[in-house]
Amino acid sequence: MSNKIEINSIYIQELTTLIEHKDSTKVVSKLEELHIADIAEVIETLSSDNAKYIFNLISDEERSAAILVDLEDNTRENLLSDLSAKEIAEEVIDKLESDDAADVIGELSDKTQEEVLSHIEDIDHANDISDLLNYPEDSAGGLMAKELIKVNENWNTVQCLKEMRKQANDVKKVYTIYVVNDDNKLLGLMSLRRLLLTQRSIAIKNIITTDIISVKATTDDEDVANIMQKYDLVALPVVDDIGRLIGRITIDDVMDVAKEEAEKDYQLASGISEDVESSDTIWELTRARLPWLLIGMIGGLFGAKVIGIFNLEKHFELAFFIPLIAAMGGNVGVQSAAIVVQGIANDSLKMENLLHKLFKELGVGLLNGIICSIIILIATFGLGYGMELSLTVSISLLAVIVFAALFGAFIPLTLEKYKIDPALATGPFITTVNDVLGLFIYFWIGQTIL
Amino acid sequence: MSNKIEINSIYIQELTTLIEHKDSTKVVSKLEELHIADIAEVIETLSSDNAKYIFNLISDEERSAAILVDLEDNTRENLLSDLSAKEIAEEVIDKLESDDAADVIGELSDKTQEEVLSHIEDIDHANDISDLLNYPEDSAGGLMAKELIKVNENWNTVQCLKEMRKQANDVKKVYTIYVVNDDNKLLGLMSLRRLLLTQRSIAIKNIITTDIISVKATTDDEDVANIMQKYDLVALPVVDDIGRLIGRITIDDVMDVAKEEAEKDYQLASGISEDVESSDTIWELTRARLPWLLIGMIGGLFGAKVIGIFNLEKHFELAFFIPLIAAMGGNVGVQSAAIVVQGIANDSLKMENLLHKLFKELGVGLLNGIICSIIILIATFGLGYGMELSLTVSISLLAVIVFAALFGAFIPLTLEKYKIDPALATGPFITTVNDVLGLFIYFWIGQTIL
Repeated sequence: MSNKIEINSIYIQELTTLIEHKDSTKVVSKLEELHIADIAEVIETLSSDNAKYIFNLISDEERSAAILVDLEDNTRENLLSDLSAKEIAEEVIDKLESDDAADVIGELSDKTQEEVLSHIEDIDHANDISDLLNYPEDSAGGLMAKELIKVNENWNTVQCLKEMRKQANDVKKVYTIYVVNDDNKLLGLMSLRRLLLTQRSIAIKNIITTDIISVKATTDDEDVANIMQKYDLVALPVVDDIGRLIGRITIDDVMDVAKEEAEKDYQLASGISEDVESSDTIWELTRARLPWLLIGMIGGLFGAKVIGIFNLEKHFELAFFIPLIAAMGGNVGVQSAAIVVQGIANDSLKMENLLHKLFKELGVGLLNGIICSIIILIATFGLGYGMELSLTVSISLLAVIVFAALFGAFIPLTLEKYKIDPALATGPFITTVNDVLGLFIYFWIGQTIL
Repeated sequence: MSNKIEINSIYIQELTTLIEHKDSTKVVSKLEELHIADIAEVIETLSSDNAKYIFNLISDEERSAAILVDLEDNTRENLLSDLSAKEIAEEVIDKLESDDAADVIGELSDKTQEEVLSHIEDIDHANDISDLLNYPEDSAGGLMAKELIKVNENWNTVQCLKEMRKQANDVKKVYTIYVVNDDNKLLGLMSLRRLLLTQRSIAIKNIITTDIISVKATTDDEDVANIMQKYDLVALPVVDDIGRLIGRITIDDVMDVAKEEAEKDYQLASGISEDVESSDTIWELTRARLPWLLIGMIGGLFGAKVIGIFNLEKHFELAFFIPLIAAMGGNVGVQSAAIVVQGIANDSLKMENLLHKLFKELGVGLLNGIICSIIILIATFGLGYGMELSLTVSISLLAVIVFAALFGAFIPLTLEKYKIDPALATGPFITTVNDVLGLFIYFWIGQTIL
């Protein structure tokens, strides 16, 4: 039993040395020990030339095609750039299932796409791929593969096994067998387990499970991920508008969707505007962070204006608590937005209406605000800031927390209503607006009291 | 083909009315249309009494046991509270696979656990469950089920099918067949597809796949999720220290782990310290948010002290840019920490050493800092804040951005080294420290220049 080999910097160092000595025999034997996912990981860390050297040493085309699918877009583009359209068709696309093939082809230029498609020998395969290319990437159609095993409702299990043996050569992962009628309408499914457990030949109609879940090709990919997770499905059939079976989505494709979505939310909440990884270049990393910083600076300039409006010279002690008020406004807003965003993502908000949600947020804001403002009143007075200033800070804090809590819940709900990604609300813009509005409330209360 | 019924507030309203009229026939027929995952969702939204009413109407024990597994801990506890240990054993645990059974039993008190176990008729099932209860929840052992299909390497495919028919009654989801030797050591696997494609009886040895991945029972659950995602696995065998097969983990159990982990990071980054949902009570939501707010307030009080140290009365104009400096320090710190945290979570940092990482972060920080400080210099001077103040703000901003970028990358790397969740670094503590240190840098530079 071979288990995964740890790919660390020592391993990469050894491999790079072998590549530099052009010791192809040793490189090949090193690569043979690895799972394709590990080879993809190794290739990602190598220079463009070394990556090409290694890739060309992999003689098994099934393996090299699978590695290509596992790579990041840029790396794949680099490796494909040396191949002709004919080579891409014969050495890569022919070895892939239709969904992976469509993903690879989809990144090529329109002209190359056509050329590659024309070089695919298996016409059915070419048609499947060209069909899949019509669906948006983030829809069920963009996730599904055309390869699946289907049987007719009128068959019995023996016929079924025979047909399946024909079909299964094209399908790498078989989880379920779909049952259709003569018009290719999806009627139900049959599990492999059930088929294996049935000893004598019986009609499929007797062992079909009709209580199944399917999606349309236009279903959003996040909805697909939610459905598969909620109903614990490893494969999900895709049907057209009149219920005909047109493809199936497997869980491995969807794992990435769910993870990417969660990562995107996390990046948004941390103020990163593009999908970057720590291994990206300094320039890419800088560019992904600049937008928030720019918005933050504009917010800061507004903040300066707000402070400037008030007569700070006379009550300069108000300045002491600017960081406190600004930070708390931003924090509370993000917290309250984040809970709403996760609620939306998990579909658990479907049942609650907007008004109820806002009332609840008002309750949470009031409770948090009262607790915090009492603590800060005691703390500031105890630290000797005087009763008037302490009262100002305490009352402002309560107002800012309640306001930010409501605002934080309101914005993502509104964004969702207008079909904009609600996670944006935990990002830069709202935080900054909360900061500035919080300052305004603070100085206004300050001027009134002092 | 039955597709999922949309569960919205109207549906819940209708159902509640039927429950109030004790119209059990109509309630039962409404519930029969639903998937167990949907019934669980419905039960979560109902009052405790209504939930019990509905739950008791489900006559199929297989179905009610599966619903229990899908519920949140509190709701499950509420429904189980009416059942005796004997009923729990016979009506729930007997109907569940060992992993789900262990999860349900694990939440009961030690005394009830023993009682329930003693009432399970199938001794093997009871032993399996009591064995699984020994593993920590967040380990491969805590995720795995004991039910699996295994065959001996010396058998042929016909023997194999016969044995499988015996075993498969206990196993609900069959993805792969594990091949072991006489000592139960895991040798490889055989796919159902392969078995179905093999027409004549041949020795299993000839169709076994030996190149497989397994984990030990002590493997961390996040590592399990990463491995299954990386290698596109729907099932993963678990072995003991000497390689004997002791269980298997299926993808549905792991989907939740990966998602929960991503959600936890997002909540940490947004300053929420407990796992809450928007449907939780006001008090739970308040409690989950208070810790960050308290840390934020302490930071704010430190900020006030820092400002107090310097002679603000003389240079009160420095106060204008307090929000700008504080916000930028916090933002940059979170951005840089978030990228490192995601790198660690995705394992892509394994190959890079700490020093290299910090140098890169220095580069990103410098680039961002220079761009921002030039913009702010022009903006503040243009807005009429005077050259000295503009220079102070611009230089401070550069210093704060570079410092926060380094600090933001350093902290999660250090936390990871000491096996503390690095996502904490995007949470309250670091943001606040960055705010305060940023202010200190600003005022120090301000006093030097002005």
